Amino acid sequence: MPDTSRPLVARSVPAKTLSPPATVSPELQASMSQMAAASARAGAASAWVPGTPAEWKAIIAHLDSQVLATLPFVASLFPHTMVRREIAGVTIREITPARLDPAKENLLLVHFHGGGYALNGGEASAIEAVIAAHHCGLRVISVDYRMPPDHPFPAAVEDAVTVWRALTAERPSSAMGAFGTSAGGGLMLAMTLKLRELGLPLPAALGAGTPWTDLTGSSDSYQVNAGVDGVFTSFDGFAAGMAALYAGDAPLSHPLVSPVHADFKGFPPTLFITGTRDILISDTVRTYRSMKRSGVTVQLEVHEAMSHAEYIYAFASPESAEAFGDLARFFDAHLAG
Amino acid sequence: MPDTSRPLVARSVPAKTLSPPATVSPELQASMSQMAAASARAGAASAWVPGTPAEWKAIIAHLDSQVLATLPFVASLFPHTMVRREIAGVTIREITPARLDPAKENLLLVHFHGGGYALNGGEASAIEAVIAAHHCGLRVISVDYRMPPDHPFPAAVEDAVTVWRALTAERPSSAMGAFGTSAGGGLMLAMTLKLRELGLPLPAALGAGTPWTDLTGSSDSYQVNAGVDGVFTSFDGFAAGMAALYAGDAPLSHPLVSPVHADFKGFPPTLFITGTRDILISDTVRTYRSMKRSGVTVQLEVHEAMSHAEYIYAFASPESAEAFGDLARFFDAHLAG
Repeated sequence: MPDTSRPLVARSVPAKTLSPPATVSPELQASMSQMAAASARAGAASAWVPGTPAEWKAIIAHLDSQVLATLPFVASLFPHTMVRREIAGVTIREITPARLDPAKENLLLVHFHGGGYALNGGEASAIEAVIAAHHCGLRVISVDYRMPPDHPFPAAVEDAVTVWRALTAERPSSAMGAFGTSAGGGLMLAMTLKLRELGLPLPAALGAGTPWTDLTGSSDSYQVNAGVDGVFTSFDGFAAGMAALYAGDAPLSHPLVSPVHADFKGFPPTLFITGTRDILISDTVRTYRSMKRSGVTVQLEVHEAMSHAEYIYAFASPESAEAFGDLARFFDAHLAG
Repeated sequence: MPDTSRPLVARSVPAKTLSPPATVSPELQASMSQMAAASARAGAASAWVPGTPAEWKAIIAHLDSQVLATLPFVASLFPHTMVRREIAGVTIREITPARLDPAKENLLLVHFHGGGYALNGGEASAIEAVIAAHHCGLRVISVDYRMPPDHPFPAAVEDAVTVWRALTAERPSSAMGAFGTSAGGGLMLAMTLKLRELGLPLPAALGAGTPWTDLTGSSDSYQVNAGVDGVFTSFDGFAAGMAALYAGDAPLSHPLVSPVHADFKGFPPTLFITGTRDILISDTVRTYRSMKRSGVTVQLEVHEAMSHAEYIYAFASPESAEAFGDLARFFDAHLAG
């Protein structure tokens, strides 16, 4: 029987070289390989943390430009029309996929982009929404919420609630789902907590892609999968900097900043997606288990060797189609128009 | 867009020291700490592979004796009666928990122990069955199947089929579930594949605890979680030796040896349990995804920071109760007496 009063012993794990495994598709292997090459080039640069708002804006613009470069190829694979407009003062992009399912014309998904609450604003915000709209055959509204350094927490949550509230005036919430990956998943959970607090209608179902729910850095996978994850390679450094930038004056453990600390009683059915190399597999699993203990209908999908949010970046892989296919079937099961 | 024709680039992951995280219970932290201390003491010894049947028998007896030492404490926490007998020539142990649920008197679970198809035979075989019988409130028959070095594959599969076939003569298979962890989970899947091939009734539901389904060693978590997992610390060495010992003359990739390669069409509802530090999380997830693609009703439960099969070893932890609670609810939902 373990003695819980003794000092804890840590494990020593030797250095490793991790190849893309033969157990994933050639497309995912190639994506993993590309990420490994990028990590090797970046080296210690990934530990750098900007010190001023101007430095933040410069690095954000640089990183967003890399995402924007993929837009033409995304559009070629997932044909759609996109309209940028405002809802109650918040910028959104409305995506109608070429393969919109006429039987689902009355349904709507609301999307929140990832990027650590600092990256992927503006034109870069709707990539996941475009991919999901295609796989789900549904119209998607992607929320271009305000972000730091100019607008820290709770601006993003306020924008999410504002858009959701306006949309529920137009159609029943039973016909509306919400989804998002990483910070987008965390924001979606924070919005739903806030909606519950305000007594507003909740989404009929949630898709939480490897949600960033613990900005305090306590999850076990922050240590275990550091350097293993090819997309989100480390919490320490830049990511922890984004967490602090976003939280502003709020404590990192605030349940609307780190929803893993929230009580999820009464939440709608929620699908979780993660991978075995994901640095946020612990954030995902801890949130899943907490919801399940609260009696929420939950479903967990884990993908072999997949890094954080890699189903977005490796959008041409069969694993990505499978992940978004799970999302599509989940919304099919829980939305009613 | 990744170029699938280029040579693959590997990731370099530096050496790490992994502490038990504050995100798990004090009981699980203490168990992780104990395992870390044991790993440090064992050092390179874990890479040793016996060379002769006599050496195998000696190390098996030594390792089994460590498991047997925990039996009194297991019995004190999970009171039960146990009867050892034979069914069609195969040794089984029938466990009746003190808290047998009278409403479930007609239901029965069949259990297959883990231990790499070499360890945990005889008196050590029924520990998981005792814990599960307690949490499920059900009678359990634990199969003490034949093992190498004297009886390699397919002896274990034959014994499993023999017992199952005999039990289905006594009660409808709709009232019977099967479960097992690690090699026990793999054996349960192999048995079910064989039952399907023979046209015999299948279990009404399966509980696959971190099943050993890829004895070829190709799963990504064999590299990623080597040294991270505190229970099953490495595939290379002793575990790969057990795989070869078990397979005997059969190829390691044979679907009844490595069921991840099987076609699961028509399988009963299956629950999978694993943890984020589990060296078999990839075996688990790959099998889960394969079943899901075949249209099987599947459920996946992943536990924060948990190593391979640690819900058995840390049997006094709340995480263990939660894992077996999921198993209990799954059988409640799918068995009918």
